[in-house]
Amino acid sequence: MNFSSDNVTGISPEILAALAAANSGSQSSYGADPLTAQVSRRLAEIFEHEVAVFPVATGTAANALALATLVPPWGVVYCHHEAHIVVDECGAPGGKGVVHHMQPAAISLTQASEAGTVYRADEIAALAELARRHALGLHVDGARFANAVAHLGCAPADITWRAGIDVLSFGATKNGAAAAEAVIFFDRAKAADFEFRRKRGGHLLSKMRFLSAQLDAYLDNDLWLRNARHANAMATRLAGGLAGITGVHLRHPVEANEVFVEMPNPLIEALFAKGFSFYRWDGERGNCVRLVTTFDTAPSDVDALLVTARSVNRDG
Amino acid sequence: MNFSSDNVTGISPEILAALAAANSGSQSSYGADPLTAQVSRRLAEIFEHEVAVFPVATGTAANALALATLVPPWGVVYCHHEAHIVVDECGAPGGKGVVHHMQPAAISLTQASEAGTVYRADEIAALAELARRHALGLHVDGARFANAVAHLGCAPADITWRAGIDVLSFGATKNGAAAAEAVIFFDRAKAADFEFRRKRGGHLLSKMRFLSAQLDAYLDNDLWLRNARHANAMATRLAGGLAGITGVHLRHPVEANEVFVEMPNPLIEALFAKGFSFYRWDGERGNCVRLVTTFDTAPSDVDALLVTARSVNRDG
Amino acid sequence: MNFSSDNVTGISPEILAALAAANSGSQSSYGADPLTAQVSRRLAEIFEHEVAVFPVATGTAANALALATLVPPWGVVYCHHEAHIVVDECGAPGGKGVVHHMQPAAISLTQASEAGTVYRADEIAALAELARRHALGLHVDGARFANAVAHLGCAPADITWRAGIDVLSFGATKNGAAAAEAVIFFDRAKAADFEFRRKRGGHLLSKMRFLSAQLDAYLDNDLWLRNARHANAMATRLAGGLAGITGVHLRHPVEANEVFVEMPNPLIEALFAKGFSFYRWDGERGNCVRLVTTFDTAPSDVDALLVTARSVNRDG
Amino acid sequence: MNFSSDNVTGISPEILAALAAANSGSQSSYGADPLTAQVSRRLAEIFEHEVAVFPVATGTAANALALATLVPPWGVVYCHHEAHIVVDECGAPGGKGVVHHMQPAAISLTQASEAGTVYRADEIAALAELARRHALGLHVDGARFANAVAHLGCAPADITWRAGIDVLSFGATKNGAAAAEAVIFFDRAKAADFEFRRKRGGHLLSKMRFLSAQLDAYLDNDLWLRNARHANAMATRLAGGLAGITGVHLRHPVEANEVFVEMPNPLIEALFAKGFSFYRWDGERGNCVRLVTTFDTAPSDVDALLVTARSVNRDG
Repeated sequence: MNFSSDNVTGISPEILAALAAANSGSQSSYGADPLTAQVSRRLAEIFEHEVAVFPVATGTAANALALATLVPPWGVVYCHHEAHIVVDECGAPGGKGVVHHMQPAAISLTQASEAGTVYRADEIAALAELARRHALGLHVDGARFANAVAHLGCAPADITWRAGIDVLSFGATKNGAAAAEAVIFFDRAKAADFEFRRKRGGHLLSKMRFLSAQLDAYLDNDLWLRNARHANAMATRLAGGLAGITGVHLRHPVEANEVFVEMPNPLIEALFAKGFSFYRWDGERGNCVRLVTTFDTAPSDVDALLVTARSVNRDG
Repeated sequence: MNFSSDNVTGISPEILAALAAANSGSQSSYGADPLTAQVSRRLAEIFEHEVAVFPVATGTAANALALATLVPPWGVVYCHHEAHIVVDECGAPGGKGVVHHMQPAAISLTQASEAGTVYRADEIAALAELARRHALGLHVDGARFANAVAHLGCAPADITWRAGIDVLSFGATKNGAAAAEAVIFFDRAKAADFEFRRKRGGHLLSKMRFLSAQLDAYLDNDLWLRNARHANAMATRLAGGLAGITGVHLRHPVEANEVFVEMPNPLIEALFAKGFSFYRWDGERGNCVRLVTTFDTAPSDVDALLVTARSVNRDG
Repeated sequence: MNFSSDNVTGISPEILAALAAANSGSQSSYGADPLTAQVSRRLAEIFEHEVAVFPVATGTAANALALATLVPPWGVVYCHHEAHIVVDECGAPGGKGVVHHMQPAAISLTQASEAGTVYRADEIAALAELARRHALGLHVDGARFANAVAHLGCAPADITWRAGIDVLSFGATKNGAAAAEAVIFFDRAKAADFEFRRKRGGHLLSKMRFLSAQLDAYLDNDLWLRNARHANAMATRLAGGLAGITGVHLRHPVEANEVFVEMPNPLIEALFAKGFSFYRWDGERGNCVRLVTTFDTAPSDVDALLVTARSVNRDG
Repeated sequence: MNFSSDNVTGISPEILAALAAANSGSQSSYGADPLTAQVSRRLAEIFEHEVAVFPVATGTAANALALATLVPPWGVVYCHHEAHIVVDECGAPGGKGVVHHMQPAAISLTQASEAGTVYRADEIAALAELARRHALGLHVDGARFANAVAHLGCAPADITWRAGIDVLSFGATKNGAAAAEAVIFFDRAKAADFEFRRKRGGHLLSKMRFLSAQLDAYLDNDLWLRNARHANAMATRLAGGLAGITGVHLRHPVEANEVFVEMPNPLIEALFAKGFSFYRWDGERGNCVRLVTTFDTAPSDVDALLVTARSVNRDG
């Protein structure tokens, strides 16, 4: 049973069906197809705002292209030191912004955050105020944006443009798509360059309809929120169970689909031995692990882990 | 009926089925899955050579990353002035190579060519000899590589490594995949950097299995060649029919799935009016058009165009 | 006697003296010194316009940084195919602008031109009109700007901002400085980014006063024009003499300090043999050569070449 | 009296004289002149090793080009967090190396260090051992290399190639040149690309002889060491005097030409009021200042500062 990442999951059945449904007849390429237009309309409705929408296949592309549009080569992007754009994207959004006498140019938040917690509207607004005062752009890496909205029960607008966000990397891959993200600009004027960057970066898909079909199904009938609610619920169930075990401590509040938890090393080893997959979070010798739940995590998988953990602890 | 591009087609049924079949259980991400490994093995077999294989989602990415690996920032890439990497990829592979006192670094061929013709093994070998003498890398943009092999009936090795090719962008998208290409290095030592460039460029897909599943089905049971043979046969049928019409002249021999043909402007306008889609190739006032056939072009579509053309000509 | 390039010359005595004069006491670094401010004031006066001035040490840096400020990475710079920025600067201003579906972004003229001729105000205005209609920036590579002004006898404003020029690389190195050029923006708003690019490119000199001292002396008492007038006069004398020799033909009108001339190969070889340095302009087998005169070319050197040429021709 | 930086100084008289001496007759451009060749020979002798030498005009250019040659775009450069390449060069050497899953590629030391101390041969050898084990390049930013050699009294080879250094940015500007640095590769094979990077970066001077003339005079008759010894001696004199004043503490041992010293704020303000220039090192409210001595600092200037400091302290 695999709690290692949301990237090990497959495709939501609704999204797979949409790929098949999109496969009829010829269609204009490079985004001039009806499905791509429909994704834009859906996002405008969901966010209650005009938007410029650019589908891409990876989160790294979404973040790198969004930040490249906000930030000149000598600009600094402020972000959490564990932010995905720093730790796991091989400098893709880098080049942008490293060093002093370089110019502050943008703030990038990760929503849900690196700790599996969720930024509230008022917290974002405070950062936006800071950004405005210093003329910085404000970007959200929303690889787990759906989990944040599901947790807060707020309108998507509340934690984006209403709070002062300029650009959102709206993730779908981790939450049920095969490979689909949408970069959303809330001020279309700021998106002027994006299209050229996407093409030049090799991120403009010729058969765009198959990328848009994923996003369309993801937005249809609230699939994005339903998937996220399930993943969040599984994380809560897991965290609740783990919290009751002696020697086990949650490192952060569990607000999305990630559980960061400290547990005795023998327990960690025992779980690995029983076939549970997950990552140690503080290196080989640390005793913190990360457990990720997803749109297709079965409650029985969660319970199996809890049963094993309890029995190990009792016998240990 | 759409003869405008191979990008307007959908997905081959076999490839769509493979996407569904790949969607079971959790899988290692970022290419550490069995399907990705199988694609490498299949390509090694098909090309009768060791290979380093890197799946990516677009042809622009394949070409840009392949050439960036061969060529330093001040290197010149020699290519046909109508090559796709120059004309339609927005400078993605550019940056590389523009100006004198810059250093010749690579030659890039397009196979099938910009004229819809096919480079023979001996022609490639002659260019390879030139490349070797000047220490240049040799790359093939094989967006329509399958059509070339189908036309020649040769072993894939004959027009790649045996003829001196270093790197091949092996296309699948135009020939039945949703979004899948493979960069193939025949000398694995030359691929050392590629993985970093792919990640940094945002072209490493997290759920790689769905990219590899497309390539796997594409290679299975010769689907790539069967699709290409069909597309080529439709082009031949179309060219044969057009050649018999007064005032119509083929601009180039038809060896793959593109027909470049000169016809009177009234005929062009009449075909547009009857609902046939295709591009004028010499601008608005020219009388050359390009007709592209694909893996799913129906013989009846070809015949419908020919019937219309003949009747227009007779009545005109 | 060296007619090969303006780069083989030394420093004008006035400029060398200025370097020595600038060498007293400590001075603020990185351009916050009085000489740098004075250069700006002088240029504003000479061009009768507000200007943003950035001294740099090389013409390649001036052109590359100026164009990078005008042009995004996917922008095309239109220029003469023999323009120095293409032929001799190793792609420094490249990166910028190569390929279609890339966006036209700027026009760059070379003044005096690649042919040794000079663009008139009305010719520049016509190009500026074109640029304005297509929202392109307009840049002048003025490595030999002084020679152009000297030839036309016009106000510097007439062939720059009054004719629609946005940015000028104002050269001094070829015309008597050791290593000094000034990038001049006529619309200061367009210069916003330049300072960061100059620093990041390693082109902001710490002891800037020694760069500014050169420019200051170059502008003082019309040295820039006096030097250019002399170089132009020497070219005219040379061209006049050569034109009278049988078998010798000027390729272009001589309007600045370069003479492009076709002559029989035995004459070329004879001049080389007598110790005259210059370049063949059409490769080893061509019979066109370029002769460059400079601020310190002696009339006797010109006459020596003419005497030799005449005698060779007579005896040949 | 100016203790703010070594960049506020002028040119050593010997170097100014060399500029004048180099100004006779025409010379081959772009480095094909005898002075440039002589600088290479001198450096080979001084370092007792074959070297590839590339003169450039700024330290930022030297460091950025040297590191770009050692490090791919996704490579990490390890350096002190206050290293000049990070703090003051606007990301010029950046791009290179920011983020994890990026690949360690080089270590860059600053000699003398950011603290005004000097790395010994055995310390460098230990870092070189580390570098070798991890296949990292080893670079020295030697903006104050002369001060380090002067302090250690060692052979230049001892703290460069003999200790495992690959590339040295050999500074002259801070120590008496107008604008001159030399990038020195001890393994000429590693320098292969440098020449193209220098040209492309706009850092190849056309009238190279005037850059080389500075370096030549700098190396002649040990001027580089004599200047550095003087600057070091002035720093020692200053540090010695300050150490004897109540409430004043040296922050680091003084081994080169920088004195980092903590002193009461009223004393700092009093020195400013008396016309001494220097920088606060911990921001506006800190009580650490940096005092820089140079090749032309007069002993009387040092003594004037000490007299003022003592009197302020007594009266304060």
